[in-house]
Amino acid sequence: MALVVQKYGGTSVGSVEKIRAVAKRVADARDAGHKVIVVLSAMAGETDRLQDLGSAVSARPAAEEMDVLLASGEQASIALLAIALKDLGHPSRSYLAHQVGIRTDADHQRARIERIDTSALRESLAAGVTPVVAGFQGIDGSGRLTTLGRGGSDTTAVAVAAAVEADECQICTDVDGVCTADPRIVADARRLDHITFEEMFELASLGSRVLHPRSVEFAGKYAVPLRVLSSFATGGGTLITVESESMEQPIVSGIAHARDEAKITMSGVPDVPGVASKILGPVGRAPIEVDMIVQNTGADGLTDFTFTVKRGDYARTLELLQPVGGELGARSISGDDQIAKVSVVGVGMRSHAGVAMRVFDTLAAENINIQMISTSEIKISVVVAERYMELAVRALHGAFELSEPNG
Amino acid sequence: MALVVQKYGGTSVGSVEKIRAVAKRVADARDAGHKVIVVLSAMAGETDRLQDLGSAVSARPAAEEMDVLLASGEQASIALLAIALKDLGHPSRSYLAHQVGIRTDADHQRARIERIDTSALRESLAAGVTPVVAGFQGIDGSGRLTTLGRGGSDTTAVAVAAAVEADECQICTDVDGVCTADPRIVADARRLDHITFEEMFELASLGSRVLHPRSVEFAGKYAVPLRVLSSFATGGGTLITVESESMEQPIVSGIAHARDEAKITMSGVPDVPGVASKILGPVGRAPIEVDMIVQNTGADGLTDFTFTVKRGDYARTLELLQPVGGELGARSISGDDQIAKVSVVGVGMRSHAGVAMRVFDTLAAENINIQMISTSEIKISVVVAERYMELAVRALHGAFELSEPNG
Repeated sequence: MALVVQKYGGTSVGSVEKIRAVAKRVADARDAGHKVIVVLSAMAGETDRLQDLGSAVSARPAAEEMDVLLASGEQASIALLAIALKDLGHPSRSYLAHQVGIRTDADHQRARIERIDTSALRESLAAGVTPVVAGFQGIDGSGRLTTLGRGGSDTTAVAVAAAVEADECQICTDVDGVCTADPRIVADARRLDHITFEEMFELASLGSRVLHPRSVEFAGKYAVPLRVLSSFATGGGTLITVESESMEQPIVSGIAHARDEAKITMSGVPDVPGVASKILGPVGRAPIEVDMIVQNTGADGLTDFTFTVKRGDYARTLELLQPVGGELGARSISGDDQIAKVSVVGVGMRSHAGVAMRVFDTLAAENINIQMISTSEIKISVVVAERYMELAVRALHGAFELSEPNG
Repeated sequence: MALVVQKYGGTSVGSVEKIRAVAKRVADARDAGHKVIVVLSAMAGETDRLQDLGSAVSARPAAEEMDVLLASGEQASIALLAIALKDLGHPSRSYLAHQVGIRTDADHQRARIERIDTSALRESLAAGVTPVVAGFQGIDGSGRLTTLGRGGSDTTAVAVAAAVEADECQICTDVDGVCTADPRIVADARRLDHITFEEMFELASLGSRVLHPRSVEFAGKYAVPLRVLSSFATGGGTLITVESESMEQPIVSGIAHARDEAKITMSGVPDVPGVASKILGPVGRAPIEVDMIVQNTGADGLTDFTFTVKRGDYARTLELLQPVGGELGARSISGDDQIAKVSVVGVGMRSHAGVAMRVFDTLAAENINIQMISTSEIKISVVVAERYMELAVRALHGAFELSEPNG
């Protein structure tokens, strides 16, 4: 008998029929002898509907009240699932954030979980009552509602799993696991049975939308075995765990991609300490999230500084840079909002220096120009023109033989 | 400077525009120097939508989870109003039931308020922050959400007003006060400036849909001055207070009516003690609400027993009575579901014995047959065929000269 946390996202509880199907699935897990804690998102579309209402009432809706507004979505979905479970003759009870003591900081709309009081959940499980916990929401030190921001319900599920020391945290979603690449781009992309937290974190950060990076980071930190699987199909999905010595490491696990990127270059700025922070200061304070940063040193004491942002932040970023450019005497500020990022990820590349060369050779063979390069221990990311993105993903997927098991 | 509780119903917060209008109104009251606590219902249609979802998930949705589900409606509306108030530069904060300590019993879907912890509200007011409290919801002793049933938000408003000892509890609605009769039936019905709790309670119970009887009872019990007024028009509405010696008492204050009634008669049952409870026992346990009860004693040791129920309960009630009728050897069980109740209400009739006669004379003059009569200290109710209801209301309104001030 295992203790399992099952998290279902918005599309999995998006209708009355789907809620009943989820209830059946939870009841099946119970009948198979497992103890289950369920964590839910709001019904698909509900968070957007509430967000739109808030934005219609005020152009700058107060963050702490938006949290109260948005949290009502999960309140409805947990009640509905508890109703469906009881309808199947299966004891169940809904838990709101304050009832299960999900304590967060007071950073509204992007709060971070500080701790979870597990006593209510443990009592519920001991009594044979399946707890259905509202994802995405928490309470701060003064008892006010908070929300965790994007991917919040995944984070709730992982945090609950860590707190109760669950055997597994299952993220039940509309895909059947983590693939070597997006199957819509690469026809022979293969579901991975197993992947490490570090790889998953890179894949999640790099635009593979299966799991939110925060939840992966959290799961890694507390070593919660995480499984991504389909809400409705059968199959084991993808298990995400810490790396073990005995694991056979494929060199490369997958190819991730991110559209909707934009790059900005400030050319001919003085190559002296403090320039980077002068350039990125106003952007960071906006706050606009900066992804890749590349700086080349020139021989003339001047340098070109390039970084990427989300495409939606492109115009605003260019605007913010104008005064800085003047101040630094930059030669020019230029940019391109039709770029994409393609990344090759795998823990095995730590010990295989040849991976980078194979990436560059593969793209060169396809005549794809690499605009920026960024590397970490277990990934290589390149920026290319967006129109070459799909070709690049397919070429790299083939080059690393990812459609073959352990390829 | 007064301390005022303002309650807005679902139609008053039924759209983004209306929420902004309510915010303006609350801000105006603040700017006029008053301290305001706002109590809200869910946006119009929202409670029905949630109820339908719950009923679609289960034919018998668990009451305690329905409360969690339904309470999410008020959570959204209070957040939206707090956002709108802040958008006007007006400090405000939403309060859920557990945050303001609205303690109820554990009778889900029809809980009763036991007490309210006023410390959070008082602190908020002292800090110049207008509290926006979720109506309709409470928490029971174990911290679970409850709802108060029909008219729940009115009851919340009155209970909050009583707890903070407000100068006035304003029920802001889509009518501009309490009228001498339904203006849709009586063209020259007049808004009452003033009415007593007892009269209002009778009018509310008798089908005048302005206020829920429970809230009126509560207000009377704690002597909270209650005012019914329009959410959007100006005007003083109707003030409901305890009767004072000096008040000039009109004999009759208003004419109420209730459609959708049905009556059932069990004829020829033994005229012995315990018969009434034998007949009404199964009905009361169903539970079906019984309104008027009339029993006439016959000379032959048999009696006819008649009572009224809501029309929707008519068929079920007839069904429940069959075995009882057999047991008691009743001659027949008959009924009529095309009846209506018309009531004349006024504290002044206590000392005016002639009121009943004027009611009977007036209806006789219109050739309207009276099927049942029921009286209390301050009201006379008659049951008539539904098709004569409007005529009866108009005739009585004229007979008591209610279109004239103090008529």
